[in-house]
Amino acid sequence: MDRVYNSFARQGMMTTLGARILSVEPGTVTISVPITPDVSQQQGFAHAALAFAIGDSAAGYSALSVMPEDTEVVTSEIKIHLLSPAIGESLIARGRVVKPGRRLVVVTSEVFAVRNGTEKQIALLTGTMVPVPV
Amino acid sequence: MDRVYNSFARQGMMTTLGARILSVEPGTVTISVPITPDVSQQQGFAHAALAFAIGDSAAGYSALSVMPEDTEVVTSEIKIHLLSPAIGESLIARGRVVKPGRRLVVVTSEVFAVRNGTEKQIALLTGTMVPVPV
Amino acid sequence: MDRVYNSFARQGMMTTLGARILSVEPGTVTISVPITPDVSQQQGFAHAALAFAIGDSAAGYSALSVMPEDTEVVTSEIKIHLLSPAIGESLIARGRVVKPGRRLVVVTSEVFAVRNGTEKQIALLTGTMVPVPV
Amino acid sequence: MDRVYNSFARQGMMTTLGARILSVEPGTVTISVPITPDVSQQQGFAHAALAFAIGDSAAGYSALSVMPEDTEVVTSEIKIHLLSPAIGESLIARGRVVKPGRRLVVVTSEVFAVRNGTEKQIALLTGTMVPVPV
Repeated sequence: MDRVYNSFARQGMMTTLGARILSVEPGTVTISVPITPDVSQQQGFAHAALAFAIGDSAAGYSALSVMPEDTEVVTSEIKIHLLSPAIGESLIARGRVVKPGRRLVVVTSEVFAVRNGTEKQIALLTGTMVPVPV
Repeated sequence: MDRVYNSFARQGMMTTLGARILSVEPGTVTISVPITPDVSQQQGFAHAALAFAIGDSAAGYSALSVMPEDTEVVTSEIKIHLLSPAIGESLIARGRVVKPGRRLVVVTSEVFAVRNGTEKQIALLTGTMVPVPV
Repeated sequence: MDRVYNSFARQGMMTTLGARILSVEPGTVTISVPITPDVSQQQGFAHAALAFAIGDSAAGYSALSVMPEDTEVVTSEIKIHLLSPAIGESLIARGRVVKPGRRLVVVTSEVFAVRNGTEKQIALLTGTMVPVPV
Repeated sequence: MDRVYNSFARQGMMTTLGARILSVEPGTVTISVPITPDVSQQQGFAHAALAFAIGDSAAGYSALSVMPEDTEVVTSEIKIHLLSPAIGESLIARGRVVKPGRRLVVVTSEVFAVRNGTEKQIALLTGTMVPVPV
Protein backbone atom coordinates (compact mmCIF):
# COMPACT_ATOMS: atom_id res chain seq x y z
CA MET A 1 0.00 0.00 0.00
CA ASP A 2 3.08 2.25 -0.11
CA ARG A 3 2.18 3.42 -3.57
CA VAL A 4 -1.07 4.93 -2.30
CA TYR A 5 0.89 7.01 0.22
CA ASN A 6 3.56 7.83 -2.37
CA SER A 7 1.02 8.96 -4.95
CA PHE A 8 -0.90 10.97 -2.35
CA ALA A 9 2.31 12.73 -1.27
CA ARG A 10 2.81 13.96 -4.84
CA GLN A 11 -0.62 15.65 -4.91
CA GLY A 12 0.07 19.35 -4.27
CA MET A 13 -3.68 19.88 -3.88
CA MET A 14 -3.87 17.49 -0.92
CA THR A 15 -0.97 19.29 0.79
CA THR A 16 -2.55 22.71 0.12
CA LEU A 17 -5.83 21.55 1.68
CA GLY A 18 -4.08 19.82 4.62
CA ALA A 19 -5.60 16.43 3.76
CA ARG A 20 -4.12 13.20 5.05
CA ILE A 21 -4.73 9.48 4.66
CA LEU A 22 -6.23 7.85 7.74
CA SER A 23 -6.23 4.26 6.47
CA VAL A 24 -5.61 2.11 3.41
CA GLU A 25 -7.10 -1.37 3.08
CA PRO A 26 -7.57 -3.34 -0.14
CA GLY A 27 -10.58 -1.72 -1.80
CA THR A 28 -11.16 1.01 0.78
CA VAL A 29 -9.29 4.22 1.67
CA THR A 30 -10.12 6.90 4.25
CA ILE A 31 -8.96 10.53 4.00
CA SER A 32 -9.59 13.50 6.31
CA VAL A 33 -9.19 17.25 5.87
CA PRO A 34 -9.68 20.17 8.27
CA ILE A 35 -12.45 22.71 7.70
CA THR A 36 -11.04 26.25 7.86
CA PRO A 37 -12.14 29.68 6.57
CA ASP A 38 -9.67 29.13 3.68
CA VAL A 39 -11.95 26.49 2.17
CA SER A 40 -15.36 28.04 2.84
CA GLN A 41 -18.20 28.76 0.48
CA GLN A 42 -20.30 31.93 0.63
CA GLN A 43 -22.36 30.87 3.68
CA GLY A 44 -19.26 29.98 5.75
CA PHE A 45 -19.63 26.20 5.42
CA ALA A 46 -17.00 24.05 3.74
CA HIS A 47 -17.02 24.45 -0.05
CA ALA A 48 -18.41 21.60 -2.17
CA ALA A 49 -14.95 21.41 -3.76
CA LEU A 50 -13.49 20.32 -0.41
CA ALA A 51 -15.85 17.37 -0.11
CA PHE A 52 -15.22 16.64 -3.78
CA ALA A 53 -11.44 16.79 -3.39
CA ILE A 54 -11.20 14.20 -0.64
CA GLY A 55 -14.18 12.17 -1.83
CA ASP A 56 -12.62 11.84 -5.29
CA SER A 57 -9.19 11.05 -3.83
CA ALA A 58 -10.51 8.43 -1.40
CA ALA A 59 -12.45 6.79 -4.25
CA GLY A 60 -9.47 6.91 -6.60
CA TYR A 61 -7.06 5.46 -4.08
CA SER A 62 -9.51 2.70 -3.19
CA ALA A 63 -9.31 1.77 -6.89
CA LEU A 64 -5.53 2.02 -6.91
CA SER A 65 -5.37 -0.28 -3.89
CA VAL A 66 -6.74 -3.15 -5.98
CA MET A 67 -4.76 -2.41 -9.16
CA PRO A 68 -1.67 -4.23 -10.45
CA GLU A 69 1.68 -2.58 -9.65
CA ASP A 70 3.06 -0.01 -12.11
CA THR A 71 -0.37 1.52 -12.50
CA GLU A 72 -1.81 4.90 -11.63
CA VAL A 73 -5.51 5.74 -11.75
CA VAL A 74 -7.22 8.86 -13.02
CA THR A 75 -10.82 9.93 -12.61
CA SER A 76 -12.88 9.51 -15.77
CA GLU A 77 -16.09 10.91 -14.29
CA ILE A 78 -17.60 11.32 -10.87
CA LYS A 79 -20.88 12.66 -9.49
CA ILE A 80 -21.32 14.23 -6.09
CA HIS A 81 -24.57 14.68 -4.17
CA LEU A 82 -24.35 17.32 -1.45
CA LEU A 83 -26.68 16.06 1.28
CA SER A 84 -26.25 18.56 4.13
CA PRO A 85 -24.22 21.69 4.91
CA ALA A 86 -20.58 20.80 5.69
CA ILE A 87 -20.32 22.21 9.22
CA GLY A 88 -17.72 21.12 11.76
CA GLU A 89 -14.03 20.76 12.41
CA SER A 90 -13.15 18.35 9.63
CA LEU A 91 -14.40 16.17 6.80
CA ILE A 92 -13.76 12.45 6.46
CA ALA A 93 -14.15 10.58 3.15
CA ARG A 94 -14.43 6.82 2.96
CA GLY A 95 -13.83 5.52 -0.57
CA ARG A 96 -14.74 2.03 -1.68
CA VAL A 97 -14.55 -0.10 -4.81
CA VAL A 98 -18.01 -1.09 -6.06
CA LYS A 99 -16.86 -3.06 -9.12
CA PRO A 100 -13.23 -3.72 -9.98
CA GLY A 101 -12.16 -4.19 -13.58
CA ARG A 102 -9.13 -4.24 -15.80
CA ARG A 103 -10.20 -1.23 -17.84
CA LEU A 104 -12.61 0.57 -15.50
CA VAL A 105 -13.21 0.58 -11.76
CA VAL A 106 -16.55 1.80 -10.41
CA VAL A 107 -16.13 3.50 -7.04
CA THR A 108 -18.11 5.31 -4.39
CA SER A 109 -17.28 7.62 -1.49
CA GLU A 110 -19.24 8.76 1.50
CA VAL A 111 -18.14 12.06 3.05
CA PHE A 112 -18.89 12.97 6.67
CA ALA A 113 -18.56 16.22 8.60
CA VAL A 114 -17.13 15.75 12.09
CA ARG A 115 -18.54 18.21 14.64
CA ASN A 116 -17.76 17.85 18.33
CA GLY A 117 -16.78 14.26 17.70
CA THR A 118 -20.01 13.31 15.93
CA GLU A 119 -20.12 12.29 12.26
CA LYS A 120 -22.87 13.33 9.86
CA GLN A 121 -22.91 12.30 6.20
CA ILE A 122 -22.75 15.39 3.98
CA ALA A 123 -21.95 13.94 0.54
CA LEU A 124 -22.17 10.82 -1.61
CA LEU A 125 -20.05 10.29 -4.72
CA THR A 126 -20.14 7.61 -7.42
CA GLY A 127 -17.65 7.52 -10.26
CA THR A 128 -15.42 5.72 -12.70
CA MET A 129 -11.64 5.36 -12.35
CA VAL A 130 -9.36 4.38 -15.21
CA PRO A 131 -5.93 2.75 -14.82
CA VAL A 132 -3.04 4.43 -16.64
CA PRO A 133 0.62 3.32 -16.83
CA VAL A 134 2.89 5.05 -14.30
CA MET B 1 -24.91 41.26 -10.99
CA ASP B 2 -23.23 42.68 -7.89
CA ARG B 3 -24.53 39.82 -5.78
CA VAL B 4 -22.55 37.33 -7.86
CA TYR B 5 -19.34 39.24 -7.15
CA ASN B 6 -20.33 39.73 -3.49
CA SER B 7 -21.09 36.04 -2.99
CA PHE B 8 -17.91 35.01 -4.79
CA ALA B 9 -15.84 37.31 -2.55
CA ARG B 10 -17.13 35.47 0.51
CA GLN B 11 -15.87 32.09 -0.78
CA GLY B 12 -12.61 31.45 1.06
CA MET B 13 -11.97 28.53 -1.28
CA MET B 14 -11.97 30.77 -4.36
CA THR B 15 -9.46 33.13 -2.67
CA THR B 16 -7.25 30.21 -1.62
CA LEU B 17 -7.17 28.90 -5.18
CA GLY B 18 -6.66 32.37 -6.70
CA ALA B 19 -9.83 32.14 -8.77
CA ARG B 20 -11.51 35.22 -10.20
CA ILE B 21 -14.65 36.05 -12.14
CA LEU B 22 -13.98 37.05 -15.75
CA SER B 23 -17.55 37.88 -16.72
CA VAL B 24 -21.16 37.73 -15.54
CA GLU B 25 -24.06 37.81 -17.97
CA PRO B 26 -27.64 36.69 -17.30
CA GLY B 27 -27.44 32.90 -17.42
CA THR B 28 -23.70 32.59 -17.99
CA VAL B 29 -20.63 33.18 -15.79
CA THR B 30 -16.92 32.73 -16.57
CA ILE B 31 -14.27 32.04 -13.91
CA SER B 32 -10.52 31.47 -14.25
CA VAL B 33 -7.88 30.07 -11.91
CA PRO B 34 -4.10 29.69 -12.24
CA ILE B 35 -2.51 26.23 -12.42
CA THR B 36 0.34 25.99 -9.90
CA PRO B 37 2.18 23.13 -8.16
CA ASP B 38 -0.05 23.86 -5.14
CA VAL B 39 -3.08 22.41 -6.94
CA SER B 40 -1.46 19.49 -8.75
CA GLN B 41 -2.42 15.83 -8.78
CA GLN B 42 0.13 13.02 -8.64
CA GLN B 43 1.22 13.32 -12.29
CA GLY B 44 1.84 17.08 -12.03
CA PHE B 45 -1.29 18.16 -13.90
CA ALA B 46 -4.01 20.25 -12.26
CA HIS B 47 -6.10 18.22 -9.81
CA ALA B 48 -9.65 17.26 -10.78
CA ALA B 49 -10.77 19.22 -7.74
CA LEU B 50 -9.50 22.44 -9.35
CA ALA B 51 -11.61 21.94 -12.47
CA PHE B 52 -14.49 20.93 -10.20
CA ALA B 53 -14.11 24.00 -7.97
CA ILE B 54 -14.38 26.58 -10.74
CA GLY B 55 -16.72 24.49 -12.90
CA ASP B 56 -19.14 24.15 -10.00
CA SER B 57 -18.83 27.84 -9.09
CA ALA B 58 -19.32 29.04 -12.66
CA ALA B 59 -22.40 26.82 -12.97
CA GLY B 60 -23.77 27.93 -9.60
CA TYR B 61 -23.30 31.62 -10.31
CA SER B 62 -24.88 31.26 -13.74
CA ALA B 63 -27.93 29.97 -11.84
CA LEU B 64 -27.74 32.81 -9.32
CA SER B 65 -27.61 35.34 -12.16
CA VAL B 66 -31.16 34.41 -13.18
CA MET B 67 -32.60 34.11 -9.63
CA PRO B 68 -34.80 36.60 -7.81
CA GLU B 69 -32.99 38.94 -5.38
CA ASP B 70 -32.55 37.77 -1.77
CA THR B 71 -31.64 34.29 -2.95
CA GLU B 72 -28.48 32.25 -2.73
CA VAL B 73 -27.92 28.97 -4.58
CA VAL B 74 -26.32 25.77 -3.38
CA THR B 75 -25.25 22.75 -5.39
CA SER B 76 -27.58 19.79 -4.99
CA GLU B 77 -25.58 17.46 -7.22
CA ILE B 78 -23.11 17.79 -10.04
CA LYS B 79 -21.21 15.38 -12.29
CA ILE B 80 -17.86 16.07 -13.85
CA HIS B 81 -16.31 14.31 -16.84
CA LEU B 82 -12.54 14.74 -17.07
CA LEU B 83 -11.80 14.77 -20.79
CA SER B 84 -8.06 15.49 -21.01
CA PRO B 85 -5.13 16.18 -18.67
CA ALA B 86 -5.31 19.73 -17.28
CA ILE B 87 -1.99 21.09 -18.56
CA GLY B 88 -1.20 24.78 -18.99
CA GLU B 89 -1.04 28.11 -17.21
CA SER B 90 -4.68 28.39 -16.15
CA LEU B 91 -8.16 26.92 -16.29
CA ILE B 92 -11.27 28.76 -17.49
CA ALA B 93 -14.79 27.58 -16.65
CA ARG B 94 -17.83 28.79 -18.56
CA GLY B 95 -21.06 28.06 -16.68
CA ARG B 96 -24.47 28.23 -18.30
CA VAL B 97 -28.10 27.69 -17.32
CA VAL B 98 -29.67 24.80 -19.25
CA LYS B 99 -33.12 24.99 -17.64
CA PRO B 100 -34.16 27.66 -15.13
CA GLY B 101 -36.80 26.92 -12.52
CA ARG B 102 -38.25 28.22 -9.32
CA ARG B 103 -37.21 25.18 -7.28
CA LEU B 104 -34.32 23.73 -9.31
CA VAL B 105 -31.96 25.08 -11.95
CA VAL B 106 -30.18 22.65 -14.28
CA VAL B 107 -26.74 23.94 -15.22
CA THR B 108 -23.67 22.98 -17.19
CA SER B 109 -20.03 24.10 -17.27
CA GLU B 110 -17.27 23.58 -19.78
CA VAL B 111 -13.74 23.86 -18.40
CA PHE B 112 -10.75 24.66 -20.61
CA ALA B 113 -7.00 24.55 -19.99
CA VAL B 114 -5.15 27.57 -21.43
CA ARG B 115 -1.65 26.73 -22.65
CA ASN B 116 0.41 29.27 -24.56
CA GLY B 117 -2.77 31.17 -25.31
CA THR B 118 -4.64 28.17 -26.73
CA GLU B 119 -7.74 26.72 -25.07
CA LYS B 120 -8.47 23.00 -24.88
CA GLN B 121 -11.58 21.60 -23.19
CA ILE B 122 -10.60 19.39 -20.26
CA ALA B 123 -13.89 18.92 -18.37
CA LEU B 124 -17.66 18.95 -18.74
CA LEU B 125 -20.03 19.30 -15.78
CA THR B 126 -23.80 19.00 -15.53
CA GLY B 127 -25.66 19.57 -12.29
CA THR B 128 -28.59 20.84 -10.27
CA MET B 129 -28.62 24.08 -8.28
CA VAL B 130 -31.19 24.85 -5.60
CA PRO B 131 -32.19 28.35 -4.47
CA VAL B 132 -32.02 29.04 -0.73
CA PRO B 133 -33.00 32.21 1.15
CA VAL B 134 -30.05 34.51 1.92
CA MET C 1 -48.51 2.27 1.03
CA ASP C 2 -51.54 1.95 -1.24
CA ARG C 3 -50.56 5.04 -3.13
CA VAL C 4 -47.32 3.40 -4.27
CA TYR C 5 -49.30 0.51 -5.76
CA ASN C 6 -51.90 2.89 -7.19
CA SER C 7 -49.30 5.10 -8.84
CA PHE C 8 -47.41 2.08 -10.17
CA ALA C 9 -50.61 0.69 -11.70
CA ARG C 10 -51.01 3.91 -13.71
CA GLN C 11 -47.56 3.53 -15.32
CA GLY C 12 -48.20 2.09 -18.78
CA MET C 13 -44.47 1.52 -19.16
CA MET C 14 -44.38 -0.82 -16.16
CA THR C 15 -47.28 -2.85 -17.59
CA THR C 16 -45.63 -3.00 -21.02
CA LEU C 17 -42.41 -4.31 -19.47
CA GLY C 18 -44.23 -6.75 -17.17
CA ALA C 19 -42.75 -5.17 -14.03
CA ARG C 20 -44.31 -5.68 -10.61
CA ILE C 21 -43.75 -4.46 -7.08
CA LEU C 22 -42.33 -7.13 -4.76
CA SER C 23 -42.36 -5.08 -1.56
CA VAL C 24 -42.96 -1.61 -0.15
CA GLU C 25 -41.50 -0.53 3.18
CA PRO C 26 -41.01 3.05 4.39
CA GLY C 27 -37.95 4.24 2.50
CA THR C 28 -37.37 1.11 0.43
CA VAL C 29 -39.20 -0.45 -2.53
CA THR C 30 -38.39 -3.59 -4.55
CA ILE C 31 -39.48 -4.13 -8.16
CA SER C 32 -38.86 -7.06 -10.52
CA VAL C 33 -39.20 -7.48 -14.28
CA PRO C 34 -38.71 -10.48 -16.58
CA ILE C 35 -35.87 -10.55 -19.14
CA THR C 36 -37.25 -11.47 -22.57
CA PRO C 37 -36.07 -11.01 -26.17
CA ASP C 38 -38.48 -8.06 -26.34
CA VAL C 39 -36.23 -6.00 -24.07
CA SER C 40 -32.80 -7.06 -25.36
CA GLN C 41 -29.90 -4.96 -26.53
CA GLN C 42 -27.75 -5.87 -29.54
CA GLN C 43 -25.79 -8.63 -27.78
CA GLY C 44 -28.92 -10.39 -26.51
CA PHE C 45 -28.63 -9.23 -22.89
CA ALA C 46 -31.25 -7.05 -21.22
CA HIS C 47 -31.13 -3.46 -22.47
CA ALA C 48 -29.75 -0.77 -20.16
CA ALA C 49 -33.17 0.88 -20.40
CA LEU C 50 -34.73 -2.11 -18.61
CA ALA C 51 -32.40 -1.78 -15.61
CA PHE C 52 -32.98 1.97 -15.75
CA ALA C 53 -36.77 1.62 -15.89
CA ILE C 54 -37.11 -0.47 -12.74
CA GLY C 55 -34.12 1.10 -10.96
CA ASP C 56 -35.62 4.56 -11.46
CA SER C 57 -39.10 3.39 -10.42
CA ALA C 58 -37.86 1.59 -7.31
CA ALA C 59 -35.90 4.68 -6.30
CA GLY C 60 -38.81 7.00 -7.01
CA TYR C 61 -41.31 4.91 -5.07
CA SER C 62 -38.91 4.63 -2.13
CA ALA C 63 -39.04 8.45 -2.07
CA LEU C 64 -42.84 8.47 -2.39
CA SER C 65 -43.09 6.04 0.52
CA VAL C 66 -41.70 8.70 2.88
CA MET C 67 -43.63 11.66 1.41
CA PRO C 68 -46.71 13.39 2.83
CA GLU C 69 -50.04 12.27 1.36
CA ASP C 70 -51.33 14.09 -1.73
CA THR C 71 -47.88 14.09 -3.27
CA GLU C 72 -46.41 12.47 -6.33
CA VAL C 73 -42.70 12.35 -7.11
CA VAL C 74 -40.92 12.85 -10.40
CA THR C 75 -37.30 12.15 -11.28
CA SER C 76 -35.19 15.28 -11.53
CA GLU C 77 -31.99 13.48 -12.50
CA ILE C 78 -30.54 10.03 -12.10
CA LYS C 79 -27.27 8.35 -13.04
CA ILE C 80 -26.87 4.67 -13.79
CA HIS C 81 -23.67 2.65 -13.73
CA LEU C 82 -23.91 -0.60 -15.69
CA LEU C 83 -21.65 -3.01 -13.81
CA SER C 84 -22.08 -6.35 -15.62
CA PRO C 85 -24.09 -7.78 -18.54
CA ALA C 86 -27.74 -8.28 -17.55
CA ILE C 87 -28.06 -12.03 -18.14
CA GLY C 88 -30.73 -14.22 -16.56
CA GLU C 89 -34.45 -14.73 -16.14
CA SER C 90 -35.30 -11.44 -14.43
CA LEU C 91 -34.02 -8.21 -12.93
CA ILE C 92 -34.72 -7.04 -9.38
CA ALA C 93 -34.28 -3.41 -8.31
CA ARG C 94 -34.05 -2.38 -4.67
CA GLY C 95 -34.59 1.35 -4.22
CA ARG C 96 -33.72 3.20 -1.04
CA VAL C 97 -33.89 6.76 0.31
CA VAL C 98 -30.42 8.13 1.08
CA LYS C 99 -31.53 11.56 2.28
CA PRO C 100 -35.17 12.62 2.65
CA GLY C 101 -36.15 16.24 2.28
CA ARG C 102 -39.13 18.48 1.79
CA ARG C 103 -37.98 19.77 -1.59
CA LEU C 104 -35.61 17.05 -2.77
CA VAL C 105 -35.09 13.38 -1.93
CA VAL C 106 -31.75 11.75 -2.75
CA VAL C 107 -32.20 8.09 -3.66
CA THR C 108 -30.26 5.06 -4.78
CA SER C 109 -31.12 1.73 -6.40
CA GLU C 110 -29.20 -1.48 -6.79
CA VAL C 111 -30.28 -3.70 -9.68
CA PHE C 112 -29.58 -7.44 -9.75
CA ALA C 113 -29.89 -10.06 -12.48
CA VAL C 114 -31.41 -13.32 -11.26
CA ARG C 115 -30.01 -16.39 -13.05
CA ASN C 116 -30.86 -19.88 -11.90
CA GLY C 117 -31.89 -18.44 -8.56
CA THR C 118 -28.63 -16.56 -7.98
CA GLU C 119 -28.49 -12.75 -7.81
CA LYS C 120 -25.66 -10.70 -9.30
CA GLN C 121 -25.58 -6.91 -9.12
CA ILE C 122 -25.63 -5.43 -12.62
CA ALA C 123 -26.38 -1.74 -12.02
CA LEU C 124 -26.16 1.05 -9.46
CA LEU C 125 -28.23 4.23 -9.67
CA THR C 126 -28.13 7.47 -7.67
CA GLY C 127 -30.56 10.29 -8.26
CA THR C 128 -32.78 13.11 -7.11
CA MET C 129 -36.56 12.90 -6.75
CA VAL C 130 -38.81 15.95 -6.48
CA PRO C 131 -42.27 15.99 -4.88
CA VAL C 132 -45.09 17.42 -6.96
CA PRO C 133 -48.76 17.94 -5.99
CA VAL C 134 -51.05 15.14 -7.15
CA MET D 1 -22.77 3.27 -41.15
CA ASP D 2 -24.49 -0.04 -41.88
CA ARG D 3 -23.29 -1.47 -38.61
CA VAL D 4 -25.24 1.17 -36.68
CA TYR D 5 -28.44 0.09 -38.44
CA ASN D 6 -27.52 -3.60 -38.06
CA SER D 7 -26.83 -3.28 -34.34
CA PHE D 8 -29.99 -1.24 -33.82
CA ALA D 9 -32.05 -3.90 -35.59
CA ARG D 10 -30.85 -6.49 -33.08
CA GLN D 11 -32.14 -4.44 -30.11
CA GLY D 12 -35.44 -6.04 -29.14
CA MET D 13 -36.09 -3.09 -26.82
CA MET D 14 -36.01 -0.61 -29.71
CA THR D 15 -38.50 -2.74 -31.67
CA THR D 16 -40.77 -3.08 -28.63
CA LEU D 17 -40.80 0.70 -28.15
CA GLY D 18 -41.24 1.39 -31.88
CA ALA D 19 -38.02 3.43 -32.08
CA ARG D 20 -36.27 4.10 -35.37
CA ILE D 21 -33.08 5.77 -36.55
CA LEU D 22 -33.67 9.07 -38.35
CA SER D 23 -30.05 9.78 -39.29
CA VAL D 24 -26.48 8.58 -38.82
CA GLU D 25 -23.52 10.91 -39.40
CA PRO D 26 -19.99 10.41 -38.06
CA GLY D 27 -20.24 11.39 -34.41
CA THR D 28 -23.97 12.09 -34.33
CA VAL D 29 -27.07 9.87 -34.45
CA THR D 30 -30.76 10.78 -34.25
CA ILE D 31 -33.48 8.40 -33.03
CA SER D 32 -37.24 8.92 -32.64
CA VAL D 33 -39.94 7.00 -30.80
CA PRO D 34 -43.71 7.47 -30.57
CA ILE D 35 -45.37 8.44 -27.28
CA THR D 36 -48.26 6.08 -26.52
CA PRO D 37 -50.18 5.05 -23.39
CA ASP D 38 -48.00 1.91 -23.35
CA VAL D 39 -44.97 3.94 -22.30
CA SER D 40 -46.59 6.38 -19.88
CA GLN D 41 -45.68 7.22 -16.32
CA GLN D 42 -48.27 7.77 -13.60
CA GLN D 43 -49.28 11.27 -14.73
CA GLY D 44 -49.86 10.18 -18.33
CA PHE D 45 -46.67 11.71 -19.76
CA ALA D 46 -43.96 9.60 -21.39
CA HIS D 47 -41.95 7.62 -18.82
CA ALA D 48 -38.40 8.73 -18.02
CA ALA D 49 -37.30 5.30 -19.23
CA LEU D 50 -38.49 6.18 -22.75
CA ALA D 51 -36.33 9.30 -22.92
CA PHE D 52 -33.52 7.27 -21.38
CA ALA D 53 -33.90 4.41 -23.87
CA ILE D 54 -33.54 6.52 -27.00
CA GLY D 55 -31.17 9.06 -25.42
CA ASP D 56 -28.81 6.27 -24.38
CA SER D 57 -29.08 4.55 -27.78
CA ALA D 58 -28.50 7.76 -29.74
CA ALA D 59 -25.45 8.52 -27.59
CA GLY D 60 -24.12 4.97 -27.88
CA TYR D 61 -24.53 4.83 -31.63
CA SER D 62 -22.89 8.23 -32.04
CA ALA D 63 -19.88 6.62 -30.29
CA LEU D 64 -20.09 3.52 -32.50
CA SER D 65 -20.13 5.73 -35.60
CA VAL D 66 -16.56 6.86 -34.85
CA MET D 67 -15.21 3.47 -33.72
CA PRO D 68 -13.01 1.07 -35.69
CA GLU D 69 -14.82 -1.79 -37.45
CA ASP D 70 -15.36 -5.04 -35.50
CA THR D 71 -16.31 -3.09 -32.41
CA GLU D 72 -19.51 -2.78 -30.44
CA VAL D 73 -20.08 -0.23 -27.69
CA VAL D 74 -21.75 -0.66 -24.33
CA THR D 75 -22.83 2.00 -21.86
CA SER D 76 -20.56 2.24 -18.84
CA GLU D 77 -22.55 4.97 -17.10
CA ILE D 78 -24.96 7.69 -18.12
CA LYS D 79 -26.84 10.45 -16.31
CA ILE D 80 -30.16 11.87 -17.39
CA HIS D 81 -31.67 15.20 -16.38
CA LEU D 82 -35.42 15.38 -16.92
CA LEU D 83 -36.09 19.02 -17.81
CA SER D 84 -39.81 19.13 -18.62
CA PRO D 85 -42.76 16.75 -18.83
CA ALA D 86 -42.56 14.60 -21.97
CA ILE D 87 -45.84 15.58 -23.65
CA GLY D 88 -46.55 15.17 -27.36
CA GLU D 89 -46.69 12.70 -30.22
CA SER D 90 -43.07 11.54 -30.17
CA LEU D 91 -39.62 11.96 -28.70
CA ILE D 92 -36.47 12.67 -30.70
CA ALA D 93 -32.98 12.06 -29.29
CA ARG D 94 -29.89 13.60 -30.84
CA GLY D 95 -26.71 11.87 -29.63
CA ARG D 96 -23.25 13.36 -30.10
CA VAL D 97 -19.65 12.46 -29.30
CA VAL D 98 -18.09 14.96 -26.89
CA LYS D 99 -14.67 13.30 -26.64
CA PRO D 100 -13.64 10.25 -28.65
CA GLY D 101 -11.06 7.83 -27.29
CA ARG D 102 -9.67 4.39 -27.79
CA ARG D 103 -10.80 3.12 -24.40
CA LEU D 104 -13.66 5.47 -23.52
CA VAL D 105 -15.95 7.76 -25.47
CA VAL D 106 -17.71 10.61 -23.67
CA VAL D 107 -21.12 11.29 -25.20
CA THR D 108 -24.17 13.47 -24.76
CA SER D 109 -27.78 13.36 -25.94
CA GLU D 110 -30.49 15.96 -26.05
CA VAL D 111 -34.04 14.62 -26.09
CA PHE D 112 -36.98 16.64 -27.42
CA ALA D 113 -40.74 16.12 -27.26
CA VAL D 114 -42.49 16.86 -30.53
CA ARG D 115 -45.99 18.30 -30.07
CA ASN D 116 -47.97 19.62 -33.00
CA GLY D 117 -44.75 19.86 -34.96
CA THR D 118 -42.90 21.91 -32.33
CA GLU D 119 -39.86 20.57 -30.49
CA LYS D 120 -39.19 21.19 -26.81
CA GLN D 121 -36.14 19.82 -25.01
CA ILE D 122 -37.21 17.48 -22.22
CA ALA D 123 -33.99 15.70 -21.26
CA LEU D 124 -30.20 16.00 -21.31
CA LEU D 125 -27.89 13.00 -20.93
CA THR D 126 -24.12 12.74 -20.51
CA GLY D 127 -22.32 9.43 -20.31
CA THR D 128 -19.42 7.14 -21.02
CA MET D 129 -19.38 4.46 -23.73
CA VAL D 130 -16.85 1.63 -23.83
CA PRO D 131 -15.83 -0.27 -26.97
CA VAL D 132 -16.06 -4.06 -26.82
CA PRO D 133 -15.08 -6.64 -29.46
CA VAL D 134 -18.00 -7.85 -31.58
